[in-house]
Amino acid sequence: MNDHLDALFKPRSVALIGASAKELSIGNVIVKNLLHYQFRGPVFPINPKVDEIRGLKAYPSVLDVPGEIDLAHIVIPPPFVPEEVENCGKKGIKAIIINTAGFKEMGAEGQALEDDSLARARKYGIRIVGPNCQGIINSDPTINAYCNFTFTYPDPGHISVVAQSGGVGAVIMQAFFDMGIGQRMYASNGNGSDVSITEIVSYYGKDDETRAIVLYAESLNDPLEFIRVAKEVTARKPILAITAGRTDKGAEASRSHIGGLAGSISMDLIYKKAGILNFSSQDDLCQAAVALSSQPIPKGNKVGIITNTGGPSVIAIDELVSCGLEIPPLSDRAKTILKETMFESASIHNPLDVVATAGPAQFKSAFEVMLSEPQFDSIYLNFVTPPFVDCESVAREIVAAAKAGTKPVVCNYMTDKQKWSGTSAILKEGEIPCFDFAETAARALHSLVRYHGIRSAKESIVKTFDDIDREAVRSILEKALSRGREVLTAGEVYAILEAYRIPVAPWAVVHTVDQVCDAANRIGFPVVIKADSEQIIHKSDVGGVAVNIPDVQKAETVAETMKKNLGDGIHFLVQKFLPKEQELIIGAKASVGVGHIIMFGLGGIFVEILKDVAFCLTPVGDTESMEMITSVKAAPLIEGFRGGKGINKAKAMEIIQRISMLGTDFPAIKELDLNPLVAYEDEISVVDARIIL
Amino acid sequence: MNDHLDALFKPRSVALIGASAKELSIGNVIVKNLLHYQFRGPVFPINPKVDEIRGLKAYPSVLDVPGEIDLAHIVIPPPFVPEEVENCGKKGIKAIIINTAGFKEMGAEGQALEDDSLARARKYGIRIVGPNCQGIINSDPTINAYCNFTFTYPDPGHISVVAQSGGVGAVIMQAFFDMGIGQRMYASNGNGSDVSITEIVSYYGKDDETRAIVLYAESLNDPLEFIRVAKEVTARKPILAITAGRTDKGAEASRSHIGGLAGSISMDLIYKKAGILNFSSQDDLCQAAVALSSQPIPKGNKVGIITNTGGPSVIAIDELVSCGLEIPPLSDRAKTILKETMFESASIHNPLDVVATAGPAQFKSAFEVMLSEPQFDSIYLNFVTPPFVDCESVAREIVAAAKAGTKPVVCNYMTDKQKWSGTSAILKEGEIPCFDFAETAARALHSLVRYHGIRSAKESIVKTFDDIDREAVRSILEKALSRGREVLTAGEVYAILEAYRIPVAPWAVVHTVDQVCDAANRIGFPVVIKADSEQIIHKSDVGGVAVNIPDVQKAETVAETMKKNLGDGIHFLVQKFLPKEQELIIGAKASVGVGHIIMFGLGGIFVEILKDVAFCLTPVGDTESMEMITSVKAAPLIEGFRGGKGINKAKAMEIIQRISMLGTDFPAIKELDLNPLVAYEDEISVVDARIIL
Repeated sequence: MNDHLDALFKPRSVALIGASAKELSIGNVIVKNLLHYQFRGPVFPINPKVDEIRGLKAYPSVLDVPGEIDLAHIVIPPPFVPEEVENCGKKGIKAIIINTAGFKEMGAEGQALEDDSLARARKYGIRIVGPNCQGIINSDPTINAYCNFTFTYPDPGHISVVAQSGGVGAVIMQAFFDMGIGQRMYASNGNGSDVSITEIVSYYGKDDETRAIVLYAESLNDPLEFIRVAKEVTARKPILAITAGRTDKGAEASRSHIGGLAGSISMDLIYKKAGILNFSSQDDLCQAAVALSSQPIPKGNKVGIITNTGGPSVIAIDELVSCGLEIPPLSDRAKTILKETMFESASIHNPLDVVATAGPAQFKSAFEVMLSEPQFDSIYLNFVTPPFVDCESVAREIVAAAKAGTKPVVCNYMTDKQKWSGTSAILKEGEIPCFDFAETAARALHSLVRYHGIRSAKESIVKTFDDIDREAVRSILEKALSRGREVLTAGEVYAILEAYRIPVAPWAVVHTVDQVCDAANRIGFPVVIKADSEQIIHKSDVGGVAVNIPDVQKAETVAETMKKNLGDGIHFLVQKFLPKEQELIIGAKASVGVGHIIMFGLGGIFVEILKDVAFCLTPVGDTESMEMITSVKAAPLIEGFRGGKGINKAKAMEIIQRISMLGTDFPAIKELDLNPLVAYEDEISVVDARIIL
Repeated sequence: MNDHLDALFKPRSVALIGASAKELSIGNVIVKNLLHYQFRGPVFPINPKVDEIRGLKAYPSVLDVPGEIDLAHIVIPPPFVPEEVENCGKKGIKAIIINTAGFKEMGAEGQALEDDSLARARKYGIRIVGPNCQGIINSDPTINAYCNFTFTYPDPGHISVVAQSGGVGAVIMQAFFDMGIGQRMYASNGNGSDVSITEIVSYYGKDDETRAIVLYAESLNDPLEFIRVAKEVTARKPILAITAGRTDKGAEASRSHIGGLAGSISMDLIYKKAGILNFSSQDDLCQAAVALSSQPIPKGNKVGIITNTGGPSVIAIDELVSCGLEIPPLSDRAKTILKETMFESASIHNPLDVVATAGPAQFKSAFEVMLSEPQFDSIYLNFVTPPFVDCESVAREIVAAAKAGTKPVVCNYMTDKQKWSGTSAILKEGEIPCFDFAETAARALHSLVRYHGIRSAKESIVKTFDDIDREAVRSILEKALSRGREVLTAGEVYAILEAYRIPVAPWAVVHTVDQVCDAANRIGFPVVIKADSEQIIHKSDVGGVAVNIPDVQKAETVAETMKKNLGDGIHFLVQKFLPKEQELIIGAKASVGVGHIIMFGLGGIFVEILKDVAFCLTPVGDTESMEMITSVKAAPLIEGFRGGKGINKAKAMEIIQRISMLGTDFPAIKELDLNPLVAYEDEISVVDARIIL
């Protein structure tokens, strides 16, 4: 046992507390699964009322079992679980899968039973999976552990699955099975009271036979720890995840059935931060996993296409190009060779149409040329099996060529797999990832390229600014919090921004009309005058905002009117009026357990109607801040469009990073909005801002 | 024979000219297919050199065959084809499938052979499929015609496929086969020299057993005729099409292999005009076809969800909501009933989680309630097959309930189909469309809702404006064309627009500086002055544009400077300067064979960066023009955003329809751009425009 989870994933013996002689009961199905999947160790059914289950001797209690037990299932009703955990401890059992449901998901009573079980397990150093879960599977032929009540018996392979929802996990496992793709390990941990998704991902990460990890999670107990662990893993092997709850309705359904933190944006951002490939479709995810677990990672996005049929290559190109992949032309050298080796009717381009009559020699040459052309990073193959071609020999050439090369190959394999079972077997044996449709093969290839992007991305360096004044901010926040205030005044907000060296249009907070005039003269006209009060949030609705005030006379009138209408107690924010150029919005929103979500967008319609915004979790590094700015659709406006000058991107990046640091330093800041900033070619200044605690 | 294509799709006898005894040759494979698929009529191999092929007597020529022949395949080399067509004519054969390639797709010589073959066929009233094609399949058990060299033997069913590319057709046919879904007819017509995609669609439309038609076309010979025919068909049954060539690269690949009209925009717009459901993925298309060929059409977009597992319903909701479907809550009545009938752990909401232990009684009640609740138009079902549930009985309840109701049901069926073969058979027999993933089931349901939208859409009425002056336009165009000019002058463009009553900012074209001053005074300041010359396209690049001229002094200076810089020969366009409000762009572009593509968008960044535009083929009716305006993402700006007033939509619609009519009346107009129009709450005026012939 070289890992604390080995007792779970590599048990030498398994007991089933609550084993049953009744067919179709969970306590029977698990015994059946262990036996049918040919578990390599002994199985001990525990049931005080029967002597034998499925031919195995049953014991009244784990304490009666003669040998050692690594792992126990518990399938009895919740009230009896804690005591059985205690027995497991006494027996020296190292891991327990509590399949039984009816714990914290059912309310306080269940929560108490869950806590009790966990406390007893901790006492003995037992690790618990569940409760309310399926369990694990390990297809390693030396282990063959099927500690689960599901029904799919995976062949050995290189993809490992971890799913919070057993339903989704089972679907994915079945999908790989239906595709004829082997799997390595499987785990579904339900309520996740002890063994976490993060630990399982880490465990898979260390397993040499696991080449790709598939993840389905609707929530995470400790997202920051998850990010740290997953980042280490994705540097070595890909993690693929479904983003669940990406719509509000979906998130709501997720919350109602798991009772935890949900929300599409944060899960997506967590995945992004960890270098996880996210998918909105299970089908796409499974197909990508097949390619990622069998093929080398391409060095770039340039694809060479070999096809023996026309229409599917049109569809493939549409999909590849839509995904941002490139299809560079053949070199003259390549054309010269191919003109010799191809049939006359072949089309010597990229796509290289070898035509339907092409045999092994044509495919061999096509692969040799495409693999040796330096401008291609990967090979996309359309292979239909014509009844008039020796397809098995073609398949052998494809496999040999792919093995000899260092570039990934994906194949849209168009056939009747029963009739062409020989050809199919050769491609499978040769680990050529085969897909039924041109689009799916193209998307699987795109996932390889995405993973290349993750692996080769420049590290995003998080800058620590030391020119800031943390104490000033702390004192403002403490004062506000001590008075139970949630909305900061403009004066407080601007003081905080200035403490973090975030450029603000020159401003002053004053009390009297005379002071307004003085301040305006000092700042320089034109100015904006706003009533500044913690009571007034929507200032413009009550006549508390006046912009573009040209001179001191007007300033005086405005201030007097506001005093009259809003009361003598108000303060005034006097601020430099900046002519509109490009408006930006930068925001921060606290997200439970993951710090803040930082947002960037262009002002007005771009954010409000087109939802053209970029998000990133704190801490936002330099590369990430650049990505945020360049990833919005309206980015050309930032660069300068139609003679427009564009904005100072370096300053925008810096503001994003300073806001990120402010959020990290002060988790009490619940929401911060710089809306808008006015951005010019040289300077960027906040002209309105809001902070909520 | 009640249709001219019956001889093709319902042949009573088939000859194969070029039949071969050689295994793996096309001339042998087709004989094999006819025999294995149990064709109901006689098969006559034609080959002068052998006596027998696959146990059938071979004849030297069709003329030697004793009985009547409905359909002949020709698989001999191109030079010999015309003569065999002649022989077919003499024999009284009614339809020929020319499988042989090497005709027009190979250049002039091939084109001549194709033309010759066609001419001879016409002489005898023979219909030709191909050349360079696969042929047809008809699964009708009374016919069993497999006149094709492909390898998938479809079971009888209700989906018919027509594909220009045999490769794509074969993939789709195989996909249905792999899903266990029957098919009705299949056709791939290759070069389409005679029998067209349009005719085949029309034929399928009249076939009662065909409930859904699947189409793959990269080009159409007569798009307008196609639209007319397809529209009739889609009013009765759905047509589903893959949009091929949706990227430039894809379209290029398509052109290179079919040599015809291609282009994603026009194919997509043709499909839209015809009420065809377009798909960018074959997988999605096939799954939608399964739902559309088995389920009633829903009356709206509101979905009731029944599930016996948690995670997959989160994924389903994400997909349903992303597709624009709604998930309304259960009524109190429904909740009351379900609280009685469901297990305690069930979640009585929409989604209704009956939980994994639910048996037939729970499913029965769930369906009864959901089907009777008026707020649901369709039922989405997640059905995982727990090993501890009597799933066959559950399946029987699902089928019975679906049959009794009038609402469509789709099912995400999560199982091992081998182990649950009984359950699977019950669902299949009961025509419950089953899908492996929540997303795919959700998308299939979305296709049903899309088809409901097509069927229930208000007819788009094309208005004929009779206040226009066709003669004025004709004379301008004729004059320009007679001088070989392609770019019209501003004066000509505005005159054309005014002839079609498209509002233009007041303008005049004059020659002298004095006339400029007079015109400006008459129009009223501020004005714009532009050098108007057919030689100058990019006027602003050469100092030929001056905007917002406030008075006559400035007008005089500007005009004099232009004369000096651009030469004495220039004319001046003097036009009212309109302050910027909302800018619009409306354009028309001639598209070979389909009239014009009309474009609508908001000016500047919206078109140029965000590509936020709507297209429609001429003639654009009222509903279509409204759709164009409301379908752009920036539509809220048109409605009035953040206190903005919005624009006069009725006028914008009218301008779109008038431009559509102008394009239809004058096909010589290759490109027309109104860029921009300035739009206010009341008026909309063209302030710059361009026409290219």
